[in-house]
Amino acid sequence: MDTTKICLPQNEIPQAWYNIQPDLPAPLMPPLNPATGEPLGPEALAPIFPMSLIEQEMTMEPWVEIPDDVMRIYKLWRPAPLHRAVALEEELGTPARIYWKNESVSPAGSHKPNTAVAQAYYNKVAGVTRIATETGAGQWGSALSFACCLMGIECMVYMVKVSYQQKPYRRLLMQTWNAECIPSPSDRTAAGRAILEKDPDSPGSLGMAISEAVEDAATRDDTKYSLGSVLNHVLLHQTITGLEIRKQLAMVDDEPNVIVGCVGGGSNFAGFAFPFVKDKLDGKDIRFVACEPKACPTLTRAPYRYDFGDTAEMTPLLKMHTLGHTFVPAPIHAGGLRYHGMAPLVSLLADQKIVEPVAFFQNEVFEAAMLWCRTEGHLPAPETAHAIKGAIDEALKCKQTGEEKCIVIGYSGHGHFDLGAYDGYLSGSLPDYEPDQQSIDDAVSTLPDVADPF
Amino acid sequence: MDTTKICLPQNEIPQAWYNIQPDLPAPLMPPLNPATGEPLGPEALAPIFPMSLIEQEMTMEPWVEIPDDVMRIYKLWRPAPLHRAVALEEELGTPARIYWKNESVSPAGSHKPNTAVAQAYYNKVAGVTRIATETGAGQWGSALSFACCLMGIECMVYMVKVSYQQKPYRRLLMQTWNAECIPSPSDRTAAGRAILEKDPDSPGSLGMAISEAVEDAATRDDTKYSLGSVLNHVLLHQTITGLEIRKQLAMVDDEPNVIVGCVGGGSNFAGFAFPFVKDKLDGKDIRFVACEPKACPTLTRAPYRYDFGDTAEMTPLLKMHTLGHTFVPAPIHAGGLRYHGMAPLVSLLADQKIVEPVAFFQNEVFEAAMLWCRTEGHLPAPETAHAIKGAIDEALKCKQTGEEKCIVIGYSGHGHFDLGAYDGYLSGSLPDYEPDQQSIDDAVSTLPDVADPF
Repeated sequence: MDTTKICLPQNEIPQAWYNIQPDLPAPLMPPLNPATGEPLGPEALAPIFPMSLIEQEMTMEPWVEIPDDVMRIYKLWRPAPLHRAVALEEELGTPARIYWKNESVSPAGSHKPNTAVAQAYYNKVAGVTRIATETGAGQWGSALSFACCLMGIECMVYMVKVSYQQKPYRRLLMQTWNAECIPSPSDRTAAGRAILEKDPDSPGSLGMAISEAVEDAATRDDTKYSLGSVLNHVLLHQTITGLEIRKQLAMVDDEPNVIVGCVGGGSNFAGFAFPFVKDKLDGKDIRFVACEPKACPTLTRAPYRYDFGDTAEMTPLLKMHTLGHTFVPAPIHAGGLRYHGMAPLVSLLADQKIVEPVAFFQNEVFEAAMLWCRTEGHLPAPETAHAIKGAIDEALKCKQTGEEKCIVIGYSGHGHFDLGAYDGYLSGSLPDYEPDQQSIDDAVSTLPDVADPF
Repeated sequence: MDTTKICLPQNEIPQAWYNIQPDLPAPLMPPLNPATGEPLGPEALAPIFPMSLIEQEMTMEPWVEIPDDVMRIYKLWRPAPLHRAVALEEELGTPARIYWKNESVSPAGSHKPNTAVAQAYYNKVAGVTRIATETGAGQWGSALSFACCLMGIECMVYMVKVSYQQKPYRRLLMQTWNAECIPSPSDRTAAGRAILEKDPDSPGSLGMAISEAVEDAATRDDTKYSLGSVLNHVLLHQTITGLEIRKQLAMVDDEPNVIVGCVGGGSNFAGFAFPFVKDKLDGKDIRFVACEPKACPTLTRAPYRYDFGDTAEMTPLLKMHTLGHTFVPAPIHAGGLRYHGMAPLVSLLADQKIVEPVAFFQNEVFEAAMLWCRTEGHLPAPETAHAIKGAIDEALKCKQTGEEKCIVIGYSGHGHFDLGAYDGYLSGSLPDYEPDQQSIDDAVSTLPDVADPF
């Protein structure tokens, strides 16, 4: 085959996001009020989200039209190219065809702007003039900063203090897009001040930063809160990636047999995979492989239960695969995959055996990333490298069986801000982490004791 | 207009590079032997370049076919998209149409791989197993590391010591692609040892690093030398960018009136502009604006004379615009534009008034970059931001005159490794530099006194 970079013409960009909720093979359990254990009504979320996004969270409409003002910004980088990894195929000697959907071409360098732009838009239309959020390693914070900047609204990012100090480039990227980015815990919120009073040198955590951002939004009339993964509406916005893949594969007369993505909160994986789930339910030969770190084995080792989304127990309860909200993952370089829970929609599909989870150590992941750099040339983010490792394993299985499968990698982002992690790998100093069963059992034992509402 | 990201189908990628030499409006002066002042024959360059590249340096063939093995690697990112900057147009209120050719999508993040891949290929075919080069800020070194890695040959990069220490990410990128990268001056070469003996703490310079790389290549049978700009064959390989632009503009029924690029050694600018020069000679309404830093005003303030390409006087003499090989540009952040000379082909076209040079201070360049980030979203390299500043000025002229011109920006690379420079701008701490006339006169007074051979 001659064509290895498949560009969808821009006038064929999908015009609506795909909502998987009407097509689910089992009922999705609703979010619960932690105080009462009762399902949460839309009004309960209104202090921190605009109503249009709350409606998207719950809608059963199969398609949600992409507004013109969102599309206008998408077109700064979309459609994202689909590449065929011919050099990798040759290196592996596999009969499989390996494609990769390149979401790294967005201004923020990952898939995250797909939802950031949409969320900024719906907030702006609702009259919100300022959005608060948290960020760990900085991928989400920079995506939302970019989106708010282009939509003309303010962005306030609480960045985990240790990352703020270690990753000045991500912080500078946010500032270039006009955002205010401060280290968390901060003295701006009651939550932050309480933490600093106990421990003035606290390095911060994602849980703490969420508490600060939610408090910021809940206590200011002009401000709402925004989340970069986990929730249904976030996953909805990401489906444009899978919808584009379908059209691009059709251009070369191909169809996917295996879709491989990394999973942290689940939005990246959902975006690539959800538009193909109905094909599987209809009997097509297609599998969905979700790659997670062994250091944070949410899908491979954790129960499917109700839990809080944050460490500080401020969020509603969500039914999901969870290691427990007190679980603290080891400091692997794939910071975007260090989350104790998993999107409820992805969790349900894993529970239904539609999504197949696998888990990897970070050294084998970086080994796969190096093979990628030296065949395909592009430098993947450590999170993305989990999907590459998963795809290589699938392609090697095809080599054994002789099957000519079509494998699609969700290439979620580039590694331009992650070269310190590569340095660690190249110098042989990366530890492999895997929690012992006791530490998982301990965290799971703190899960709230609530029953499914139906 | 609806289409703002114009993707050329991959089967329409240009199959040959365009050679401007047969179309020049005046004779190009040949390189001279510095000892004799006589034109240099091909054999004089054979110790450091393979004969195929020496032939390309001198060929009068109008087209040079792109070899299959080069095309295979080009297709990892090519064709590069052409975008229309609608948001910037609206912000400026200009009737001009502004397009930008996005060379930042290459694995190394700039246009440099266009020639790096070609040079690695021709060296490999000639039996060379190792290439030595120098790099300043690291753009060229990383592009050649990438190319050598994918071609399966060794790459040795002498990196200016102060950059080696200040830019660990660029160095790590080279190492990820298997290159050996060491700080220059080093103890590996006689040139390096001589410098270290006089000054053990020397911070290095591009001139010193060139001396080391050339010596490395000249003294080892398995090794040749590679240069990332200035020479004719380097500019030749870059013309794929302009050839793609022509096809992409035709897809939206448009033609360029102004092509704007930044100039350091000249290869980036030549790549975008050369395929359109004959149009101008044939009477079409098209201008070529070359943007340089006021700190290194090679085209705007320097004479058109024979000079050495390097500080250490090891290279042949080239007829070019030159500030003098002893000129030391101020430490602006656009490291790729800090070169005392200019490609002989670009120099000739400037001398013939076909290329129009302009010069900018770095603060006005970063101001333009910030406007770009906040409208088009993407983060440009400081070098590239010079072209953006030039294009904004042209678009504002159109606003004054009401002319609906088609302006094309050569977007040579992203700024993901340059956020320190943005930090300097945002914190208000960037100095503006402009050499006084005496310092230019002093450097120019050291030019060798040789006459044009014809």
